[in-house]
Amino acid sequence: MPNRTESAEDRLIARHFRPLAKNPGALGLVDDAAVIAPPAGCDVVLTTDGVIAGVHVFPEDAPGDVARKALRMNLSDLAAKGATPLGFLISLALPGSIDDGWLAAFATGLGADAERYGCPLLGGDTDRTPGPLSVSIAAFGAVPNGKMVRRATAKAGDRIVVSGTIGDAALGVLLRRDQSLAKRWRLSDAMSTHLRERYLLPQPRNALACAVLQNASAAIDVSDGLAGDLAKLCRASGVAAEIDVARVPLSDAVRAAIAADPAILETALSGGDDYEIVATLPTDKLATFNAAARAAGVAVSEIGRIAVGEGARFVRDGKALHFAQPSYSHF
Amino acid sequence: MPNRTESAEDRLIARHFRPLAKNPGALGLVDDAAVIAPPAGCDVVLTTDGVIAGVHVFPEDAPGDVARKALRMNLSDLAAKGATPLGFLISLALPGSIDDGWLAAFATGLGADAERYGCPLLGGDTDRTPGPLSVSIAAFGAVPNGKMVRRATAKAGDRIVVSGTIGDAALGVLLRRDQSLAKRWRLSDAMSTHLRERYLLPQPRNALACAVLQNASAAIDVSDGLAGDLAKLCRASGVAAEIDVARVPLSDAVRAAIAADPAILETALSGGDDYEIVATLPTDKLATFNAAARAAGVAVSEIGRIAVGEGARFVRDGKALHFAQPSYSHF
Repeated sequence: MPNRTESAEDRLIARHFRPLAKNPGALGLVDDAAVIAPPAGCDVVLTTDGVIAGVHVFPEDAPGDVARKALRMNLSDLAAKGATPLGFLISLALPGSIDDGWLAAFATGLGADAERYGCPLLGGDTDRTPGPLSVSIAAFGAVPNGKMVRRATAKAGDRIVVSGTIGDAALGVLLRRDQSLAKRWRLSDAMSTHLRERYLLPQPRNALACAVLQNASAAIDVSDGLAGDLAKLCRASGVAAEIDVARVPLSDAVRAAIAADPAILETALSGGDDYEIVATLPTDKLATFNAAARAAGVAVSEIGRIAVGEGARFVRDGKALHFAQPSYSHF
Repeated sequence: MPNRTESAEDRLIARHFRPLAKNPGALGLVDDAAVIAPPAGCDVVLTTDGVIAGVHVFPEDAPGDVARKALRMNLSDLAAKGATPLGFLISLALPGSIDDGWLAAFATGLGADAERYGCPLLGGDTDRTPGPLSVSIAAFGAVPNGKMVRRATAKAGDRIVVSGTIGDAALGVLLRRDQSLAKRWRLSDAMSTHLRERYLLPQPRNALACAVLQNASAAIDVSDGLAGDLAKLCRASGVAAEIDVARVPLSDAVRAAIAADPAILETALSGGDDYEIVATLPTDKLATFNAAARAAGVAVSEIGRIAVGEGARFVRDGKALHFAQPSYSHF
């Protein structure tokens, strides 16, 4: 018999989310707040990001993938700051069309990634909304006192490295909207699948966080496009960046699309949702960083250098590229 | 000249929110994340709550009041846990109808309360939405290690105290929806204004946090109604509560409404949005708690006792009241 003093929200939380709240700090999701004891000698890194159906995810995306994308966007921010995840709060606004089956699948996806990345659910807030589904997450991580890797601390002479490959998700979302592009870009089925999956589900580089923390002079999560995010890092640090476009890591699928339509290069370099890490490194840290990245199983590529000046220049065959829209924005 | 690599979101944040981000941990809102150094020997208390236009606030509410309400809901959670505010993250979903003037007023209200309660803006996330305005806040506070005041730790024999007055906001929102109730309830203009203002703008009891931390065996923020929230505390603690209804603190306005319509008593005791604190205290802590509350300038009333058993009983003239809907839920 349901307890008459429990609200529908309490029952929803108990059914779907309490099983995920294994961390003692979550207090079984039955308190006003959660509580964490940050590791001694550590600062707490705080970030928030989220998705709105129809803006950041397609309304028809699988609920588990929506949950995982929202969590992974935040995990990517923690990774770029060199932080080890401590946990997260989730704020859900649910339209009336969301049913129990949807929530069960959402919670399953969320729980799987919370386990995978060692980032436990600590608490949250659930409301009904007359608008679209919205998932907002605030995530927390630990770094040794004063050691968070910032955007504002790149130095002239530093090398620039980037993880993974760039542009897959930007092409993936175009493919989601227009399937005929696969033919125009002469993509194999495997290539199309690769691009779509890179958009659907980011692969945050938390395995690289320790290498970033120990070696990077500055770093940023690439979520609004390599060109735009590198420009932000340069602006915050008061430096310039020069990128050798030939060295920017591209997947076979992106290379195929560029071969079919050279204008796609700009899309790849300035489109969003990569969730890779760009870091700057003093030259003498490069070898150590590369070894740590190999140990972590994350591919990294050196793509350029920080210099005196301002702005991020992308150079190909000795000429600077000019982007019509250097930064992607959902806004 | 606007920097061409800055997005509309970047400019909005720079214009309205960067002036509020004075705490060094906010890094001027130009990094992926914020960073705080929790005071040595302290745990970090984490909570999240928010408002959606048309659900928790009226679409026509003044933007500064919407901002303050969203922040104060979270401050109230921190107060009930005995925590001192450390700061907050804000996640905004903005419909197209929100203009620059609205945002300026919103940020002004937010900044005023961040100063007033010593809870600085640390970071956030801003998106456009096809749905209603949504403001989600995650707030952080500090308590000495292991000392967060929980819901689950009330003991049989403890006294039950509550801050402020109960039921004002529940009547205030009814008045907002139907102005003719003021006449039916025989309210003076001052009484009507009092009830509306208590709904519009909670008065979180952060001044009481220290007294709660040092004396309470358990506590809960009263946001879903005194009856429902006390039932949650009892369930979490595995105890019963007996409340002497005659001792529940009511404002003159609520007393007037009950005199005109006795059924309003249930609305007052079970309606939401009080943002008061219910705490349980060992009997030998009561005098110290009362003195600390007076020193803090917060009215507190002893309203009953914790007993062995289950459920929260509200007793008037020797008889237990029965509530049709013991807990308010926006859900």
